[in-house]
Amino acid sequence: MSRPKEVRISFEEVFEVLTNILIDRNFPDEDAALSARLFTETSCDGVYSHGLNRFLWYIDDIEKKYIKIGKSPRLIKRNGVLEQWDGQLGPGNLNAFRCTERAVKLAREHGVSCVSLAHTNHWMRGGTYGWQAADEGCLAMMWSNTTGNMPPWGGTVPTIGNNPFVMAVPRAKGHLVLDFSQTLFSFGKLSIYKNREEQLPFEGGYDPDGNLTRNPVAIEASRRPLPIGLWKGSGLAIMLDLFAVILSGGKSTMELRKRDHEFGVSQIFIVIAPGAEIFDSSRELLLDQIIQDIKETPVVDRHHPVRYPGENTVEIRKENLRKGIPVQKEIWERICSL
Amino acid sequence: MSRPKEVRISFEEVFEVLTNILIDRNFPDEDAALSARLFTETSCDGVYSHGLNRFLWYIDDIEKKYIKIGKSPRLIKRNGVLEQWDGQLGPGNLNAFRCTERAVKLAREHGVSCVSLAHTNHWMRGGTYGWQAADEGCLAMMWSNTTGNMPPWGGTVPTIGNNPFVMAVPRAKGHLVLDFSQTLFSFGKLSIYKNREEQLPFEGGYDPDGNLTRNPVAIEASRRPLPIGLWKGSGLAIMLDLFAVILSGGKSTMELRKRDHEFGVSQIFIVIAPGAEIFDSSRELLLDQIIQDIKETPVVDRHHPVRYPGENTVEIRKENLRKGIPVQKEIWERICSL
Repeated sequence: MSRPKEVRISFEEVFEVLTNILIDRNFPDEDAALSARLFTETSCDGVYSHGLNRFLWYIDDIEKKYIKIGKSPRLIKRNGVLEQWDGQLGPGNLNAFRCTERAVKLAREHGVSCVSLAHTNHWMRGGTYGWQAADEGCLAMMWSNTTGNMPPWGGTVPTIGNNPFVMAVPRAKGHLVLDFSQTLFSFGKLSIYKNREEQLPFEGGYDPDGNLTRNPVAIEASRRPLPIGLWKGSGLAIMLDLFAVILSGGKSTMELRKRDHEFGVSQIFIVIAPGAEIFDSSRELLLDQIIQDIKETPVVDRHHPVRYPGENTVEIRKENLRKGIPVQKEIWERICSL
Repeated sequence: MSRPKEVRISFEEVFEVLTNILIDRNFPDEDAALSARLFTETSCDGVYSHGLNRFLWYIDDIEKKYIKIGKSPRLIKRNGVLEQWDGQLGPGNLNAFRCTERAVKLAREHGVSCVSLAHTNHWMRGGTYGWQAADEGCLAMMWSNTTGNMPPWGGTVPTIGNNPFVMAVPRAKGHLVLDFSQTLFSFGKLSIYKNREEQLPFEGGYDPDGNLTRNPVAIEASRRPLPIGLWKGSGLAIMLDLFAVILSGGKSTMELRKRDHEFGVSQIFIVIAPGAEIFDSSRELLLDQIIQDIKETPVVDRHHPVRYPGENTVEIRKENLRKGIPVQKEIWERICSL
């Protein structure tokens, strides 16, 4: 199968088109601009699966009222630097952005904070909030639960979530941001390989007969993707869900599974602000040395040097800002006709 | 090869023997008793690789002065609930226990805390500190860096650490504690399969020719174990090291690799105390339901139900308290002759 035809659209044009669509759908001006910026930046950073490609879903969720326009997080309870917020089913990307903002503010005052968020929606690209915290000089760990989409280790039915997890480290020469779900290959990745009629580079799940396979179609059919690290990623997914449920008071994967459609998920935002008290800027050089050292590791294929989390992002961002953001022609046409 | 002959020794006897050995080596009485208890509990919980089996290494590190007897963590800097401690190369298990104690105290007062620890030593079983925090009603995330023992994704030389990571959730009916390193099979596991002359159940690394293999001997020879989730666990290991280095001011994997022997590692202890403000005990029932739901997932093999993190531990602990702690006869004899 040939790859779908792509066009390149400037950052400004994408941003303006999305902003206008959201204003037309009664987003408050500020919300429309912020949401449009987050979607545009995600595609600009090369995370196409969670940028423009997902904007059509977002609009669909708005039209079906899973996402409540104009709703924003409301503080429910607090215990020191631990806060519990209710997302009121507002737009997931705006809710996550605002909880990150809040967590950064609290961490700046007290060194560390944990903001939990119940009844929110898909945050789109999780890494967005890692970049946001790092831009404020903070370290961060954030995660979301999801509906059931992965079997626990030993199981054959997807009763647990692939719960995306984000870690961020600020650095003058470019932040490090890690963003991964607990399935070895995300559903977006499976679908890319499927559309190209390609096999996965590694076994990524079971086929419907229970054999390990590299075939993305077979894995979608069995609904048995492999967790990262097999039993380890299964355990990590369970723990991330429990933390989110206990701290936010929101819905667990078990409860989300009972819904026809995924909405009202639970999230955690832990932010650490070392400040000059803890992290003397003279240590910045050490960070650069560690990254350089990792990058100098001898490799299997000299065309593929070791990369650190977030390294690709910075390069792709620069290229897309220069050349325009690539988007499938058909998707861009559908967005423009909204 | 036949398995080594085992004996079972009561908890009390193991504890007493270890305490006396440590007192003989000039441990202060309180330190000797605490260290002996932590080793005994680890073996009692079934984590044999990090209990009695590792006690001989611990004594060796003490005799070679990598571990400094009588040294304990010293507060260096603080920024609100973020604290930086210097482990002064004291016993790694005692340092980690005391930093967990400190993190629990801070979290109880402020909801959340992060204690970082530089210049410490191997904490033995990481899960120990998860159980400790959970016993105090707290959630916890803790990790340690290590010397280089795993190649980053795409690399052929072990320049990054397998940095063990712990998460704990307290629960009236039994805590959940997850404890895993970033290699799919830990070095302890590889050595168990090697001694039994068995293949791994899944591909766990590369052989010296660069082919994926289930052969533990070949993986030890290549020094190329697989990270969990391939590129994902590689990224996670890098981020865990950076967090530990930035917050503790201690040594990175890059620096630890330059030493002939692993000592002076860096660790992080994040503790969250929800308190009655955040976690109403009426929600305890929901936790039990979530765990029950996961355990009821249909399985591949009905003799192997899905297990939650820590479930095995509680069962094995009960059995070993009743029957005595199993230990290889040869190892027990060597310990008794110390």
